[in-house]
Amino acid sequence: MSQEGQASRAAEQTKRGTERLEAFSDGVFAIATTLLVLDLKTPEMARVTPAALADALAHQWPRYLTLVFSFVTILIIWVYHHRLFQSVRRAGTTLLLTNGLLLLLVTLIPFPTSLVGRYLTTPGAPVACAAYAGFFVLIDSAYSLLWWVVYRQETGGRVGGAPLPQGMAISFLGIPCYAVATVVALRVPLLSLGICAAFWVVWAITSRTPRLPSKGTA
Amino acid sequence: MSQEGQASRAAEQTKRGTERLEAFSDGVFAIATTLLVLDLKTPEMARVTPAALADALAHQWPRYLTLVFSFVTILIIWVYHHRLFQSVRRAGTTLLLTNGLLLLLVTLIPFPTSLVGRYLTTPGAPVACAAYAGFFVLIDSAYSLLWWVVYRQETGGRVGGAPLPQGMAISFLGIPCYAVATVVALRVPLLSLGICAAFWVVWAITSRTPRLPSKGTA
Amino acid sequence: MSQEGQASRAAEQTKRGTERLEAFSDGVFAIATTLLVLDLKTPEMARVTPAALADALAHQWPRYLTLVFSFVTILIIWVYHHRLFQSVRRAGTTLLLTNGLLLLLVTLIPFPTSLVGRYLTTPGAPVACAAYAGFFVLIDSAYSLLWWVVYRQETGGRVGGAPLPQGMAISFLGIPCYAVATVVALRVPLLSLGICAAFWVVWAITSRTPRLPSKGTA
Amino acid sequence: MSQEGQASRAAEQTKRGTERLEAFSDGVFAIATTLLVLDLKTPEMARVTPAALADALAHQWPRYLTLVFSFVTILIIWVYHHRLFQSVRRAGTTLLLTNGLLLLLVTLIPFPTSLVGRYLTTPGAPVACAAYAGFFVLIDSAYSLLWWVVYRQETGGRVGGAPLPQGMAISFLGIPCYAVATVVALRVPLLSLGICAAFWVVWAITSRTPRLPSKGTA
Repeated sequence: MSQEGQASRAAEQTKRGTERLEAFSDGVFAIATTLLVLDLKTPEMARVTPAALADALAHQWPRYLTLVFSFVTILIIWVYHHRLFQSVRRAGTTLLLTNGLLLLLVTLIPFPTSLVGRYLTTPGAPVACAAYAGFFVLIDSAYSLLWWVVYRQETGGRVGGAPLPQGMAISFLGIPCYAVATVVALRVPLLSLGICAAFWVVWAITSRTPRLPSKGTA
Repeated sequence: MSQEGQASRAAEQTKRGTERLEAFSDGVFAIATTLLVLDLKTPEMARVTPAALADALAHQWPRYLTLVFSFVTILIIWVYHHRLFQSVRRAGTTLLLTNGLLLLLVTLIPFPTSLVGRYLTTPGAPVACAAYAGFFVLIDSAYSLLWWVVYRQETGGRVGGAPLPQGMAISFLGIPCYAVATVVALRVPLLSLGICAAFWVVWAITSRTPRLPSKGTA
Repeated sequence: MSQEGQASRAAEQTKRGTERLEAFSDGVFAIATTLLVLDLKTPEMARVTPAALADALAHQWPRYLTLVFSFVTILIIWVYHHRLFQSVRRAGTTLLLTNGLLLLLVTLIPFPTSLVGRYLTTPGAPVACAAYAGFFVLIDSAYSLLWWVVYRQETGGRVGGAPLPQGMAISFLGIPCYAVATVVALRVPLLSLGICAAFWVVWAITSRTPRLPSKGTA
Repeated sequence: MSQEGQASRAAEQTKRGTERLEAFSDGVFAIATTLLVLDLKTPEMARVTPAALADALAHQWPRYLTLVFSFVTILIIWVYHHRLFQSVRRAGTTLLLTNGLLLLLVTLIPFPTSLVGRYLTTPGAPVACAAYAGFFVLIDSAYSLLWWVVYRQETGGRVGGAPLPQGMAISFLGIPCYAVATVVALRVPLLSLGICAAFWVVWAITSRTPRLPSKGTA
């Protein structure tokens, strides 16, 4: 094989590597998203009447709420993941491992979601909501780490010279916010969920400008 | 990087963005489809005989029926989603969020399906069928919204000038149809499922001409 | 847009359509495959000792057997599906619907699998094995139908002129074989599984030559 | 169709075949990964208090541990699978079947994982950990076999002439290591998990150089 052929094959392999990483990540995001529905159980009751069934369905409202909550969260993480990877040209080992850490946490989202859905209207609500918000401290940390790794890799180490991308700054900012929500949960569980929701609004608003600064235009 | 190189890379990123959105959507469709089987439980009985097992399996017929029902529904939504995205050249934030809303609802389909499968032959049937049809009011609304967003984006805002694509018109038409089915369910549950089924036939027949009008031929 | 541009875009859309169909199918195959594991339950016992746990695990052998059985089945269907679609250049509505029918049945495989796993060593074995083999009559019929649709589409209707591809012939042959296995199951359940297994061996051996006859070489 | 057209179409089919195989494998890896979360159950308790809920959550630590354990394992297998397939240019029947065997075992990982999660803190721990380590003897054997098949295929049978790739050597080395861990489990269950973990560290460290020797540079 000629040198040119080798270079071209290597370039194609790199591209395929990045694409396969994105496809794998998308698979995990899609499945974690879809598994949320397994938390919605068909209610059972001693004597079935239309009113009893309607009641039982209405009674499950915390499960519906938390499901939508977690779905939107995964969707937003996915959108940003998606945009972040548009800047990635090489899937090195560090990137693979950091991305893997994020994916591990994403696959676990159905668990704290189910916890809040089950215990939001019980005396266990503070613990359930703290676990939920605390879990997002972990996810946001993994996400910030991933951003950092991509940023270093794609700016060629000259990190100091470029301004922090806005999306990355927001990601770092999220860590203390979720930490506050975790503490708040122990006193006012619903307020904790409100803080998490407010944080999404920020992400959704700023989602129009998440790109890394392009090297060519600097 | 030269201007040309940047433009070409941007174009490729846009294409990859659309493709990744489609792949993510396909993942969600495929998983929601496949999770339907989890509603089929191996029957348990006090004393196992061939006749008792055959009886127990036959007794589950509402679950088989609703599973096929929901599978066909997801398949049709997928086929149209698939065709609709052939007209999409750019995955903007509005499109991502609208598509996300549709996907959220698609992931939830196993829940109302399971509800009808469990309660169709009980006094709870009116509530179960109303929940099912009412859920499709939501899905069809999300779908119509997605179509509208794509239509606006791809006709460059000159919406008034072009005739409504047939598939989009049918999508809008579905909203009142499913609403009627929801009300009917409270009196005649099976008729409600019949209305939903009739509506699929319309979609299947018209599925040959769902394309958006091409700008070049206008 | 110029005529040439339109033609090229149409060609690309066709290609993307076929690829998206394959990707969706792969998703369903992969998920149906993976859901089989949900049938393996962690055993529970009154008093936990190493011997009791080992016993309980060994006692589940019919579940392990049927899981491997169904996994191999799905894998073989996937391999042939994969090869069949190498001949497909256009994803028309008929093809989409026929493929959808096959996928529906593939998603259901975990259910008869679970049935055999649960009842193989009980008096219910005849019914469970008959349901299993009978289910594969349906799957093989759907598969033969898909092959027929592809064959007609890709030979341009001139079906009589070309010899039947070997894989397609074997697929048609499978229908009566599975039907026989269904009847046999009612008397000798294990023999029924043996017939199904023997049939795989045929597929595995012949899997080297499943291609449709190429038009260019005819 | 001209001969050139046929050759080019055949080449494209080969490429699509390999890509589809990778996509299918990725799907299975992603789903097996994500299904691990189904082992985390929302705890139930007689009387719900914040302390009781916190206790119940903390009590599940073996499940969290094994989940992370298995996630990392699947991720590492995926990373190597991913790299291995960069050397694959043709998806023949032998490769399809060997890869299928590996995927079958990967889909089963949630089962031994769940077993250890449930029984690690009970007298059943030796059996559970032996089943876990023993299961990885199987997986590592399948993986070594896959590597061997790829190696033979891509070096054109001239196996003796080229040095064994490092990753392949480590894979073969893993088989006796996991076998030792299986035996150790029967006496010291936790040490068995430690041996498995130590083995990952080796893989992670060596993951920078897993490529097959390139034929062009030999």
